[in-house]
Amino acid sequence: RVDGKRLWDALMTLAEIGATPKGGNCRLALTEEDRAGRELVTGWLEAAGLTLRVDEIGNIFARRPGRDDSLPPIATGSHIDTQPTGGKFDGCFGVLAGLEVMRVLDEHGIETEAPLEVVIWTNEEGSRFVPVMMGSGVHAGLIPLEKALAATDRDGDSVAASLERTGYAGDVAVGSHDFGAYFEAHIEQGPVLEQEEITIGAVTGSLGLHWFDVVVSGQEAHAGPTPMPYRRDALKTACALVSDILTLADDYQPNGRVTCGEFNVHPNSRNVIPGQVRFSVDLRHLEPAVLAEMHDQLKALCLKHHAANQADKQRVDVELIEVQHIPPTPFAPELIEMVRSASQELNLSFRDMETGAGHDAVQIAGINPVAMIFVPCEDGISHNESENAEPADLEAGANVLLLAMLKRAGV
Amino acid sequence: RVDGKRLWDALMTLAEIGATPKGGNCRLALTEEDRAGRELVTGWLEAAGLTLRVDEIGNIFARRPGRDDSLPPIATGSHIDTQPTGGKFDGCFGVLAGLEVMRVLDEHGIETEAPLEVVIWTNEEGSRFVPVMMGSGVHAGLIPLEKALAATDRDGDSVAASLERTGYAGDVAVGSHDFGAYFEAHIEQGPVLEQEEITIGAVTGSLGLHWFDVVVSGQEAHAGPTPMPYRRDALKTACALVSDILTLADDYQPNGRVTCGEFNVHPNSRNVIPGQVRFSVDLRHLEPAVLAEMHDQLKALCLKHHAANQADKQRVDVELIEVQHIPPTPFAPELIEMVRSASQELNLSFRDMETGAGHDAVQIAGINPVAMIFVPCEDGISHNESENAEPADLEAGANVLLLAMLKRAGV
Ligand SMILES: NC(=O)NCCC(=O)O
Ligand SMILES: NC(=O)NCCC(=O)O
Repeated sequence: RVDGKRLWDALMTLAEIGATPKGGNCRLALTEEDRAGRELVTGWLEAAGLTLRVDEIGNIFARRPGRDDSLPPIATGSHIDTQPTGGKFDGCFGVLAGLEVMRVLDEHGIETEAPLEVVIWTNEEGSRFVPVMMGSGVHAGLIPLEKALAATDRDGDSVAASLERTGYAGDVAVGSHDFGAYFEAHIEQGPVLEQEEITIGAVTGSLGLHWFDVVVSGQEAHAGPTPMPYRRDALKTACALVSDILTLADDYQPNGRVTCGEFNVHPNSRNVIPGQVRFSVDLRHLEPAVLAEMHDQLKALCLKHHAANQADKQRVDVELIEVQHIPPTPFAPELIEMVRSASQELNLSFRDMETGAGHDAVQIAGINPVAMIFVPCEDGISHNESENAEPADLEAGANVLLLAMLKRAGV
Repeated sequence: RVDGKRLWDALMTLAEIGATPKGGNCRLALTEEDRAGRELVTGWLEAAGLTLRVDEIGNIFARRPGRDDSLPPIATGSHIDTQPTGGKFDGCFGVLAGLEVMRVLDEHGIETEAPLEVVIWTNEEGSRFVPVMMGSGVHAGLIPLEKALAATDRDGDSVAASLERTGYAGDVAVGSHDFGAYFEAHIEQGPVLEQEEITIGAVTGSLGLHWFDVVVSGQEAHAGPTPMPYRRDALKTACALVSDILTLADDYQPNGRVTCGEFNVHPNSRNVIPGQVRFSVDLRHLEPAVLAEMHDQLKALCLKHHAANQADKQRVDVELIEVQHIPPTPFAPELIEMVRSASQELNLSFRDMETGAGHDAVQIAGINPVAMIFVPCEDGISHNESENAEPADLEAGANVLLLAMLKRAGV
């Protein structure tokens, strides 16, 4: 059994790096804070006897040898980068639950047949750099390494430069090895487990995700002397369009989601009519056909608002740009069953569920068998500084991870 | 008569500082670019025989002695700070037309009865720091010096610190002296003169301006797992509210204006439901009563959207904050008449008009007699990198300024 207090303490210590005023975390991918977090956690992993390797996209693989090192490793992990106003648990719980499993095995001198691995994936959150789930996506061959390295943040800083600066431009070729299995423990980030008072979610797969940028182009002009009928106001069109887009999931409940999270106005000056607005659209659904239908409707809305704004002196153009598409992804039935049976052995309540958030596990599912272990989080809130979880639930999740990994690796 | 080519060359030389890719200017108030612009122009003013003084808010007064220096100076001027994507003429024309007048007088050894002054006002644009028209507002006693010095930009940098850094924290007490008259030459920033093929606008007064911030507060949460009915989406409410606000001038045409120019989303991450939006509202009208009516309607809209979003799991709050209010301001009839008669003497077409943009002259109108001289600008466009004006029109405007100043100062 894992040590729940030690796990909690590790979470709280990591959360001191990039701590925010409201009790959350800001450790954006490949910033100085992320670097400091990586140093802390890799130090712990080495102290538990693991050997580190870093690949070209900065993914960290910490290996614990097995009796038969020719077997592919049984892996676990997640990410430690956060949202700009993120919490202490999203991602960190998966990495530190993996660490805790290794610490327990080390303490008791337990050997496994297959080697074990704890992985820290680069830039899962996608809020500084897109594509999201970048490190796992590159590892799985879904995102070309060159594309990932060339991605830039809003200030024009690239992934490649940030990897160099933080010292995490590793020399291991990406996609170097397969996993025998990949388990990822994570807070649910939704309200279901808490509301139903269930401790463990056995995740059967993920909602598909389709990301876009919408660019609305008018013309900047002075807010004072420019008469209303001569305005090419990009914000006016953007706001009307967002209002329409945010109804796109109404017909596809309960599994449809639509979000506009990023929204940037140019030149963003109080007495200038906005000349350009660029905003993001995030569509999600469990069924590929419905996700495609939502995409069609998004296209139609953009065309409609473009067409409605072509009058001579008020022209505003709307352009839709695809950013990323991750289809709905089912997980591996035999591993899902291991999560269920480990929960049963531990006398923990559990249920099957889907994940609405993307996870590194979703990328890995493209090449190796994966499963995820969810635990409840307070009010279902995440991507928020007040994100919270119960120590007992986190401990339970880590115990399920321990049993499932041992079962799969062989003792 | 002024030298139109020399005036144009001065404009183009100043525009090299903070030049933007699309041919515009970015010389935000009290930045390094603004400092470099001030050095250039004050060098020219000194070379034309003027003496500089800088007050505590960084306003620069360049004086040319008169025969009777006990008389209050006849002043002209404007600003050389720009919008983030501003043009080469807004403000700069007024300052450099003043410089050109001084150069002509210097060349011909012309003495005036009253002293003359060219003034460069600090932070007219208000896009880095509010209040807008800050230097002239402090000089006129409409904005307390302490409030202006304490104003900060989006990065928390203050006016006081920026004045120190750029070397423009002067020692002359603000509001040190009155003007006998203040003339300001400016591009119209609207379409009227160009469309009517008239060269000179004799400005009779300005639209009132009322500025606000609206803060819309929901709760950030994850775009994937958070079901639609549990969202407290600040962007959704903000977009609906902006759509309503932008109709606020419809009933008050042709003199009503409403603009939302600044719009910031927090935390502005692609997979986070926005927790907060803060946007600006700029209301303008020529009549105080109508401006007050528009303000009342804005209040009512904010209350309506606040009230409409109090359902338990979707609560979003709307708050309206007043930022600045400059009432409609009439200019001095005797100076307006001088602008008309100077135009007539020069055989230039002219008409009376109001200004929709605020100007330093509007602040000075609170304490001393003022008038403004407008010239046409291309397509009525300003606060835009493609802002443009005809050299001949600028020359004409500077000649009207020359005659009006001489008439008022006495030769
Ligand atoms: N787990 C998580 O927050 N992933 C970020 C990717 C997403 O937007 O779903
Ligand atoms: N002239 C000018 O652009 N002034 C800025 C103040 C305003 O917004 O009217």
